Amino acid sequence: MWKEHPDPEPGAGDLLVAVRAAGINAADLMQRRGLYPAPPGAPVDIPGLEFAGEVVAAGAGTSRFGVGDRVMAITGGGGQGQLVVVPETIALPVPDAVGWDRAGGFPEAYSTAYDALFTQARLGAGERVLISGAAGGVGTAAVQLAHAAGAEVLASVRNPERRAEVAGLGADLVVDPDEVAAHAPYDVSLELIGGANVATTLPLMAVGGRTVVIGVGAGARIELNLLALMASRSTIGGSMLRARTVDEKSAVARLVEEHAVPLLASKVVDVQVAERFPMARAEEAYERFASGGKFGKLILVEE
Amino acid sequence: MWKEHPDPEPGAGDLLVAVRAAGINAADLMQRRGLYPAPPGAPVDIPGLEFAGEVVAAGAGTSRFGVGDRVMAITGGGGQGQLVVVPETIALPVPDAVGWDRAGGFPEAYSTAYDALFTQARLGAGERVLISGAAGGVGTAAVQLAHAAGAEVLASVRNPERRAEVAGLGADLVVDPDEVAAHAPYDVSLELIGGANVATTLPLMAVGGRTVVIGVGAGARIELNLLALMASRSTIGGSMLRARTVDEKSAVARLVEEHAVPLLASKVVDVQVAERFPMARAEEAYERFASGGKFGKLILVEE
Repeated sequence: MWKEHPDPEPGAGDLLVAVRAAGINAADLMQRRGLYPAPPGAPVDIPGLEFAGEVVAAGAGTSRFGVGDRVMAITGGGGQGQLVVVPETIALPVPDAVGWDRAGGFPEAYSTAYDALFTQARLGAGERVLISGAAGGVGTAAVQLAHAAGAEVLASVRNPERRAEVAGLGADLVVDPDEVAAHAPYDVSLELIGGANVATTLPLMAVGGRTVVIGVGAGARIELNLLALMASRSTIGGSMLRARTVDEKSAVARLVEEHAVPLLASKVVDVQVAERFPMARAEEAYERFASGGKFGKLILVEE
Repeated sequence: MWKEHPDPEPGAGDLLVAVRAAGINAADLMQRRGLYPAPPGAPVDIPGLEFAGEVVAAGAGTSRFGVGDRVMAITGGGGQGQLVVVPETIALPVPDAVGWDRAGGFPEAYSTAYDALFTQARLGAGERVLISGAAGGVGTAAVQLAHAAGAEVLASVRNPERRAEVAGLGADLVVDPDEVAAHAPYDVSLELIGGANVATTLPLMAVGGRTVVIGVGAGARIELNLLALMASRSTIGGSMLRARTVDEKSAVARLVEEHAVPLLASKVVDVQVAERFPMARAEEAYERFASGGKFGKLILVEE
């Protein structure tokens, strides 16, 4: 598992970061199974969409971060290597009070949740948001961000043992997926499950409602009744961070730094760490991820 | 066909209008076939989603229009009767230079096109819009409104004989539906066809693109690949005017009055009248509508 690679070099505008912690995401497993190729420019054999670590070298033209600074970032891949190169514009500062493990699990989950809820779905204070599949990394981030923004949060969680924990994050109500119809309508639906769940929740949307699909573990092909969209004037959209350009990722990073990192620093939101694994035991961590049912993130840490 | 009905009475805030002309729409045919019930409060046996005529009585509390004024409006049904009652807030003034026939075919097509392009899809100047099925009543309105707003308009028209006419309305390019892929990507897709056409155009959308479905003649149930939405961060939405509340229709009327009626008055846009039929020959007009291939609207006129 732990392969030797030449040390990456920071180019102009890049930071070279010694990784201290890296969160595991569903896309890592898909990439390892050959289902989800690494994007152009990312290492094909090192997974890792997010990491936190210490800057060990800064390329020409960098201005904000220097050697020894603590940063965290999303990346197209390679975040689970020992050294990673990242454009400075994508890096976020790690607040002083936040440990490496939580920082390593923050960028992907919180950037994904923030972008989906606020940029894509334009969730507003007082609106009702359904978060389907709320116990995972992105789900726990989304519940906290939506609650902090003044939305009314209804979370669906399949595993009954996880419901009290999700409620503790600020969800107004946590129910089984089979019970979400009883609490409709919803202004926003954050879809982390995919498949038939999308068609099930569509008729539950309020007039002008917005469904944003960011996970398709239950399937990507669905049957859609266009008349249901027309009657409610609601929309179905989707989003992923991984395929975006550096400029697009930089734009997300600035929004997250402005709106979500301060909430992390002040503990209004926090990264739920389900379990930590040493980098050398990454295989075990992937197996644990694949088995599901966790609350929050699995994090690989340098020891 | 021409049945006797008791004269409607204008209630508080309502106008009683002597109908002079009324456009025919797809929903009229669906209602006549029993496929699309009249909404609550609308007469069940008089079709007609739009009309123009002269005010013959004004209910208590009306303030803007009086007896003799020329008005046009969308309505939940009954627009093809001799007398129709409409809330004053939904009525639009008919510009002096506009004849009854064109006024009778304006409200539904232009309100539908305006709402879909600008309120639902947020089409902006300089964006590229695909209008699929551009030769009909709503399509011809949409081409003109999008062109007037500074968008780049690509129209698809199945019937080759109609392409020059659609180009004459301001479309930058008019092509066969099979050729739209060659001119992608599109920021906005106005979908007047439905069915498989939606899935065909989805991969042609630009990042952040918006598909708005307002017609499903080719079918309402489609198969959708959620990964295509996620990759392009595009949305699919739908809209219909008919089922909206009076308040919602009033809001649409104010936008149309502010932005589209002045374009009609100054002939920047115009209602394309394919054919006129006397009210007494409505059956013939419906048959003509069902046979398709027309350019613009079929209008029933009082003689």
